[in-house]
Amino acid sequence: MLSSHNQDILRSLGIHRVIEPLGSLPQAAWKLNNTPVVQHSETLVEVHALHIDSASFTQMANACDRDHERLKRHIMDIIHQRGKMHNPVTGSGGVLIGVVRELDDLYATANKLTIGDTIISLTSLSWLPLYIENIHAIHFDRSEIEITGSAILFRSNPLAKMPTDLPRNIVLAALDVAGAPSRASQLVQPGQRITVLGAGGTAGLLTLCAVRQRIGSQGEIIAIEYNEQALHDVASLNVADVLVRGNATQALELAKIVQEACSARDYLADVAINVVNVPHTEFATILLTKPQGCILFFSMATSFTAAALIAEGIASQVEMQIGNGYMPDSGTTSLQLLRDFPALRTIFARRFN
Amino acid sequence: MLSSHNQDILRSLGIHRVIEPLGSLPQAAWKLNNTPVVQHSETLVEVHALHIDSASFTQMANACDRDHERLKRHIMDIIHQRGKMHNPVTGSGGVLIGVVRELDDLYATANKLTIGDTIISLTSLSWLPLYIENIHAIHFDRSEIEITGSAILFRSNPLAKMPTDLPRNIVLAALDVAGAPSRASQLVQPGQRITVLGAGGTAGLLTLCAVRQRIGSQGEIIAIEYNEQALHDVASLNVADVLVRGNATQALELAKIVQEACSARDYLADVAINVVNVPHTEFATILLTKPQGCILFFSMATSFTAAALIAEGIASQVEMQIGNGYMPDSGTTSLQLLRDFPALRTIFARRFN
Repeated sequence: MLSSHNQDILRSLGIHRVIEPLGSLPQAAWKLNNTPVVQHSETLVEVHALHIDSASFTQMANACDRDHERLKRHIMDIIHQRGKMHNPVTGSGGVLIGVVRELDDLYATANKLTIGDTIISLTSLSWLPLYIENIHAIHFDRSEIEITGSAILFRSNPLAKMPTDLPRNIVLAALDVAGAPSRASQLVQPGQRITVLGAGGTAGLLTLCAVRQRIGSQGEIIAIEYNEQALHDVASLNVADVLVRGNATQALELAKIVQEACSARDYLADVAINVVNVPHTEFATILLTKPQGCILFFSMATSFTAAALIAEGIASQVEMQIGNGYMPDSGTTSLQLLRDFPALRTIFARRFN
Repeated sequence: MLSSHNQDILRSLGIHRVIEPLGSLPQAAWKLNNTPVVQHSETLVEVHALHIDSASFTQMANACDRDHERLKRHIMDIIHQRGKMHNPVTGSGGVLIGVVRELDDLYATANKLTIGDTIISLTSLSWLPLYIENIHAIHFDRSEIEITGSAILFRSNPLAKMPTDLPRNIVLAALDVAGAPSRASQLVQPGQRITVLGAGGTAGLLTLCAVRQRIGSQGEIIAIEYNEQALHDVASLNVADVLVRGNATQALELAKIVQEACSARDYLADVAINVVNVPHTEFATILLTKPQGCILFFSMATSFTAAALIAEGIASQVEMQIGNGYMPDSGTTSLQLLRDFPALRTIFARRFN
């Protein structure tokens, strides 16, 4: 028999909403009870939009040949099967935006919330019971879905209140990947060489700015991006020292290009940050990092075993971190970067408005 | 067109042995060419035994109902399909023991090798072309298979020479997991609370001793183990401060037991080391670690996305590392622990002889 203390932990995590397998965490569960009626300790949010994790959205969009109607049905099928927007192929989710309609007292105090506040969940959608009445629009360009629906938040789930000085879509995009720039900023030191793979994506651009702000002029930033337009955006930020167009799934070719871009100098990173949204980029990341260096894998497409076995196979002792999206700044680092770097805000405004 | 420098990298990694998909790393490849005839830059080893990764062996043994003949056929099928001992379900391998029969000059110099040396591969079996003529015996108790066969080693693959003062089976078992104690020893500091999950396994016992040696009497070690006999072995080492019998797949129950075992004191770890050989232990590990702490996931059954999303979902900023099995000590830390801790050697002698 569980103590009342443990019963509280169970409820604060949302385990009482798990349908199968019973007793697992909501994130690990196959199916949640998504009935949009609050129980004790829960908070109800009226959901207006979902910002889907990039790896998940890309996979679903490709599976549906980027067809609006097929993708709508695909999403409704996932909700029907799982009670949450949890892509069974990629295992990843995203974040939601909505308005607080019913509010648990303890949650209100902990997060300084009132009913009617507009909030963004910082817990993955793979954790939260979600009920969708209707899908109004799909924005392929920004992995976003406009809906009418309801979500349940549990006491353990972090969230952010919507700031008033930044447009909604920009905030949503920045918060979805807020852990990467915040964690990267804590990891790097002035004087280091830092390589960002997938530098032109949302997480990549924020990370480049966070790293530059942290190291100032002491150190070197190498930005790697496959897409030509995205690389142009990286250039317009003017924060990276070396820009490389290359494919992170082709490790040896990429290493050659980076080596050439760095001319005669050493090209291996002290810290590499992987924010690529496709699989099979572990090898390139390890190959571009010093054996005594450190890698932050933020891509949800990272394979744990591939990373461990490749490092072992090529005899590199590199330290590899699993990108943990939670940082106690609740996204404020990312939002401040949008204020501090006008060029970054310009790119976000173009991409997400 | 690749430069000759890059052609050398390709060969030193063994990419020329990949059959499908072409251009991938041997570890990531579905199938390797396992023809036991050396080409330029390769080294040929006459293989006597395979020490299979614990997650892989457990999965295969269960799939074959621990039947010798079925498991032999299952292993031969994998070799036939893949040209390497690479379990398609777990994605993991193990190590091999054998005698050098044909030797590349550069590899000989780098590793101080001569023909006739008995060696243990420190590269995962998932990387190495392996040809099996015959399987002589399967040792369920120590995840070991005695064979007649041949393996190809590439220039980038680390290995260890067999020491003369320790029995073969003990060395093999210790080197298979040598990265865990070596890396844990570098990570922990005197004064910390260190929790080892799966403490009674091979990696767990070595890690406990390595951590105790590093922190001396300054700090606290919590050892968690599910199996009663294995927990008895942990007790006989006399290096852990708190012993807990518990199931790491049942996070909330385990947290309660650990909390009780630590009485009124704090029970959260500064550093947790996960060397459990079953899946779904990420939640327990995160729940038992301070949000400002660090986790070393050494279990090959770890899910990257589960770890990232659980930490995010319960709002823990914990640093999580992918256990990289390669350390430049080439296993000497582990072998020295067997000499420094007679009780450890006694357990190894019982388990692996």
